[in-house]
Amino acid sequence: MGSIDTSPTAFAAFGDDTSFQPLNADDVRSYLHKSVDFIYDYYKSVESLPVLPDVEPGYLRRLLQSAPPTSSVPFDIAMKEVREAVVPGMTHWASPNFFAFFPSTNSAAAIAGDLIASAMNTVGFTWQANPAATEMEVLALDWLAQLLCLPASFMNRTATGRGTGGGVILGTTSEAMLVTLVSARDAVLRRIGSDGVAGITKLTVYAADQTHSTFFKACRLAGFDPANIKSIPTGADTDYGLDPAKLLDMMKADVAAGLVPTYICITVGTTSSNAVDPVGAIADVAAMFNAWVHIDAAYAGSACICPEFRHHLDGVECVDSISMSPHKWLMTCLDCTCLWVRDAHRLTDSLETNPEYLKNDVTDSGAVTDLKDMQVGVGRRFRGLKLWMVMRTYGSAKLQEHIRSDVAMAKMFEDAVRADDRFEVVVPRNFALVCFRIKPQGAMTEQDTDKANHELMERLNRTGKAYLAHTAIGGKFVLRFAVGSSLQEERHVRSAWELIKKTTTEIIKGEM
Amino acid sequence: MGSIDTSPTAFAAFGDDTSFQPLNADDVRSYLHKSVDFIYDYYKSVESLPVLPDVEPGYLRRLLQSAPPTSSVPFDIAMKEVREAVVPGMTHWASPNFFAFFPSTNSAAAIAGDLIASAMNTVGFTWQANPAATEMEVLALDWLAQLLCLPASFMNRTATGRGTGGGVILGTTSEAMLVTLVSARDAVLRRIGSDGVAGITKLTVYAADQTHSTFFKACRLAGFDPANIKSIPTGADTDYGLDPAKLLDMMKADVAAGLVPTYICITVGTTSSNAVDPVGAIADVAAMFNAWVHIDAAYAGSACICPEFRHHLDGVECVDSISMSPHKWLMTCLDCTCLWVRDAHRLTDSLETNPEYLKNDVTDSGAVTDLKDMQVGVGRRFRGLKLWMVMRTYGSAKLQEHIRSDVAMAKMFEDAVRADDRFEVVVPRNFALVCFRIKPQGAMTEQDTDKANHELMERLNRTGKAYLAHTAIGGKFVLRFAVGSSLQEERHVRSAWELIKKTTTEIIKGEM
Repeated sequence: MGSIDTSPTAFAAFGDDTSFQPLNADDVRSYLHKSVDFIYDYYKSVESLPVLPDVEPGYLRRLLQSAPPTSSVPFDIAMKEVREAVVPGMTHWASPNFFAFFPSTNSAAAIAGDLIASAMNTVGFTWQANPAATEMEVLALDWLAQLLCLPASFMNRTATGRGTGGGVILGTTSEAMLVTLVSARDAVLRRIGSDGVAGITKLTVYAADQTHSTFFKACRLAGFDPANIKSIPTGADTDYGLDPAKLLDMMKADVAAGLVPTYICITVGTTSSNAVDPVGAIADVAAMFNAWVHIDAAYAGSACICPEFRHHLDGVECVDSISMSPHKWLMTCLDCTCLWVRDAHRLTDSLETNPEYLKNDVTDSGAVTDLKDMQVGVGRRFRGLKLWMVMRTYGSAKLQEHIRSDVAMAKMFEDAVRADDRFEVVVPRNFALVCFRIKPQGAMTEQDTDKANHELMERLNRTGKAYLAHTAIGGKFVLRFAVGSSLQEERHVRSAWELIKKTTTEIIKGEM
Repeated sequence: MGSIDTSPTAFAAFGDDTSFQPLNADDVRSYLHKSVDFIYDYYKSVESLPVLPDVEPGYLRRLLQSAPPTSSVPFDIAMKEVREAVVPGMTHWASPNFFAFFPSTNSAAAIAGDLIASAMNTVGFTWQANPAATEMEVLALDWLAQLLCLPASFMNRTATGRGTGGGVILGTTSEAMLVTLVSARDAVLRRIGSDGVAGITKLTVYAADQTHSTFFKACRLAGFDPANIKSIPTGADTDYGLDPAKLLDMMKADVAAGLVPTYICITVGTTSSNAVDPVGAIADVAAMFNAWVHIDAAYAGSACICPEFRHHLDGVECVDSISMSPHKWLMTCLDCTCLWVRDAHRLTDSLETNPEYLKNDVTDSGAVTDLKDMQVGVGRRFRGLKLWMVMRTYGSAKLQEHIRSDVAMAKMFEDAVRADDRFEVVVPRNFALVCFRIKPQGAMTEQDTDKANHELMERLNRTGKAYLAHTAIGGKFVLRFAVGSSLQEERHVRSAWELIKKTTTEIIKGEM
């Protein structure tokens, strides 16, 4: 912002300067200090706030101005409205009483890293546009690959020099699925000699029916034929994991019908119930058809930094790509989804752009990968910083301790559920998610049971003292109790369990 | 994080607690205060840092550990490495001497809003998952729509109640293009009675050859046939804007060939030279073919909050969607791309998912739009907060002043270039980007001239005192001088001009 304006207006909020200085260092410090005070108060008080707010659609517009103001006001006004209008309408993911969905774990180091990224506000689409951001992202991904014991083939740089693999930090798992789907699609179209995209109607993709709905959406975004997006049924016999034999049968039948198996998505830790598809066995099947294999370990990938959970990734050396989201369980605030591919060129072949205004000598030299060529968009935040700061500050031992503590709390909850014969654990617990329900009591039908569990969830959530979500497993309405919100301690899990027991007693009394 | 761990390790950095508390409020405050001090120092000193760093690929790995540490360390260690290793390898987009690309403008209010979003770390995929975040995003988009004088048909809520239009904040313009392309694709496939996606080979999309390369990439991501992704030539006769007559001819020929015009992307303010495609005339042509019309106003959209620039959007009432990025020119740090559509259902028809674990009564009631159904992914940051804070705190008058000041500085630079007969302004300046070059001097051929301009750019950038990018216009190598980095003042523009003149004198002396 310059000082050219010939009719400057005095702007008290920014001192005595006559020109508008939106990034004046003193103002930045002042606004941020106020924000830090707010955050401190928020973390200190969030436990006492209702986790799920009691507001109606449209509530915020009734509290705030419906039109943008013309004049500037002190920053305190916005902060006052945040406290009085925004906070009361929030679902508090930071609350230790949050047990719904997968927690968005967070940490002081991550927030600090994200703040610095917001302030530097660089756009590292090419290496040249911010060498430090590109290299930090690549380094952070290689560090995390080491924590996950990923094979060297996924590394940007190995002990012997630049690797053929590569990684990129994206905003969501969906984007990781989309870019790998597109790469697989294009490679198969080339392989089958398709005239343009004409062959796309022959390409098939596969995933278990427990796979996140966003995978099936990503397939549609990439243009796959809805009829060729195959959802493979699972059941209690495999704990809702994908059966490789069923996959093989389906792929064989598709090939016999003239179709071309192109991509299979493996989930390690499904959203619904934390089911784990068997990586190695599926990769073996896919290899028979030369299909791309992707592992979605969005949530449970973080657990695989602990040796006792790493076996869930056994076989990863045979897959083409893997993604996991530190913004779920590795204490790194949104957005942060890590994608690694075994051959970075398979991504860049589909995703590279080369406009004149981004050309530069370093890119031309081939010595670097421009990260824009591994994602949907061009622009990109300096996301690597927060992820690196988390690993740099806490170290792998503390990160493992964090995972183990959450799992131990979930196990404690699971043991409590199992010890109360009014309840059942519906599927075995793999990580820190417990799927449970009230069992049919007395003459209750399955329908009554579903209703009782739905009622339990509604009553719990209305208290504001706990927030649980649900899912459907084998046609049953099941409660999801996800442990791990970053402020959570054992006492919160115990309180929630007491509340669940008490509410269940009330419901059963009313039902029977 | 719980306190269950049976063998806790003392962790000095987090006080005397035996368990690991990654979100301890005192630690958060301490880390953030250190970060704020860093940011303050950074803004105070960034002017003196080389804009473009002098580092080689791989530099960062030579300075930092190549493997993740096992043990935790005080946060100061990470901050020290940021100061000593990261900062020296950064391209400083915050530098007032940054004139390359479009500036990523920023403000104290935006950084504060982004910080609070990082700390709250909610994931507002559905309204229920964070009512305040969903409603704040919708409100901020309606506010900005009012500043841009968008027709009520694009609003989430109009004076008479809930509108049919809607908006969403995405990460990048590319995503805005992708989701609208997919919606248009699916609608046309349904219209032509396609058997699955078989009809996709008939669908055509159009844009001027000056359109950002990411548009053509988005078309490929969505599965359009490369042969049907039409780039329409432009020239000096239209100042590189799209000629509607050429579009009409091409669409007619395509229809005659059995193809189906599906989507046209209009750019208001191209990246290369800030060319403006005529919105109304193009929308008229598209209407003859029932094709989706999208406006990409990523950069110049911000200028349209000023009445004197709003005419560039005339005709917007006839298009289907428009996107612009406050993270470019509206002082809101990344990521923040706003997309509005005239009929929100046209997006959600293609993008909706409805997994059991996200079902809830409010969604079922139809009273709200879940924003996950207007984007690629499921998860989403609380991005609306920073955008609202910018408008709430500064008000429209200051936002307009900010745009006008940048434009005035660009005009000053343009006038200086025009007054020096060694240079030429290659295309008329529309906003705050000046495209200029050294003119052929004496016996210099066009090739010599390109070389001289390339040399000028390289020498300028090597000084560290200015960073300019280039483009190609009409086959010529042209320098892009983009004004508007948030710390920029008139004196920085003047200094850069002096440096350009001096360096040009040296080059011409050597050349001739």
